[in-house]
Amino acid sequence: MPTYKLTYFDIRGRGELIRMLFVLSGKEYEDKRVQFADWPKLKPTLPGGSLPILEIDGKVYTQSLAIAQYLAKEFKLSGKTSLECLRVDEVVHTAEDMLQAMAKSMFEKDETKKKEMIEKLAKEDVPRFTKIFESFLTENKTGFFVGNSISAADLAVYNVLESAITKLGEAALKDSPKLLENRKKVAADSKICNYLKKRKQTDM
Amino acid sequence: MPTYKLTYFDIRGRGELIRMLFVLSGKEYEDKRVQFADWPKLKPTLPGGSLPILEIDGKVYTQSLAIAQYLAKEFKLSGKTSLECLRVDEVVHTAEDMLQAMAKSMFEKDETKKKEMIEKLAKEDVPRFTKIFESFLTENKTGFFVGNSISAADLAVYNVLESAITKLGEAALKDSPKLLENRKKVAADSKICNYLKKRKQTDM
Repeated sequence: MPTYKLTYFDIRGRGELIRMLFVLSGKEYEDKRVQFADWPKLKPTLPGGSLPILEIDGKVYTQSLAIAQYLAKEFKLSGKTSLECLRVDEVVHTAEDMLQAMAKSMFEKDETKKKEMIEKLAKEDVPRFTKIFESFLTENKTGFFVGNSISAADLAVYNVLESAITKLGEAALKDSPKLLENRKKVAADSKICNYLKKRKQTDM
Repeated sequence: MPTYKLTYFDIRGRGELIRMLFVLSGKEYEDKRVQFADWPKLKPTLPGGSLPILEIDGKVYTQSLAIAQYLAKEFKLSGKTSLECLRVDEVVHTAEDMLQAMAKSMFEKDETKKKEMIEKLAKEDVPRFTKIFESFLTENKTGFFVGNSISAADLAVYNVLESAITKLGEAALKDSPKLLENRKKVAADSKICNYLKKRKQTDM
């Protein structure tokens, strides 16, 4: 088995999907967490100047979604057929689009503008994405996004909805019954359940 | 063989990597191009509200990078091993990051701000990405990004650099000898060469 070392900030962000893939697969990995204070010194030493990176037997790979999809395939969490794999990847990329839409307000320093952006998030962006996710679940019928077990798709959506709930409260999912059910299914997995209980609590 | 129908705007943008995968593989597909005037009517009918979409035997899939990686795998243009496939995906996602960095200035309406953004693009963003791409090529040594033939990685970088050259001129690649050589290798492929000659010329 290869050795895996993930390096990311001490938040969920773009590292958490990768962490949860390791958790669900039961595979060991080193979870190196970088403090923001150490970032200016670390940044110039990284191939793409950004995190996360994953070292596989010492070789460095960048790009969180490429890493996640690679691990999902290695751990058989990316669908059983090539078309299922496409659907998993599609859902993962949609979750990333939602994360990007939510991240915009984080960097806004003008408090009035920030408030407006969060209102738009609650009224437009989050409902737009939850509707897309609900329709995937409606189509697949099993309560999971693809096939009839947890895949990288369920984990990616679980993560981004966690960020939406942190920001906007449980109301963010009030019109998304299938998403609420899907989140329960993910959290009911014994490895995930155990991880969610003991993981470090962070704001994002 | 499945039937493929790509629907995208009448530009290169996020559709061109998918088109070039079809070209290089020699596989047939329908290249449906939507005019901007028809977009407001079409948008509400689409699953994710955005383009491109790919229909495979009539079933709709969204997310350009998920689609591209699926086709690359089907057409054997995504690397020979799982780690090569990860590297291809990493390069493709890095090209997407560069495309996003370049797209920002397109939507700026204030002419002074737009000029500043294009200057920053030329001085900071483009050199940052070309440096990353050069280092991938330096590591792989074959003149291609992964393995020793054209993969989705080479096509993705070819496209985004085309946009950089359109915006900033040939000077965008003046310090990137390996990228210039890689572009020549891509354009020398007979199918690609033929396609580049006859494809519709668009600004982006």
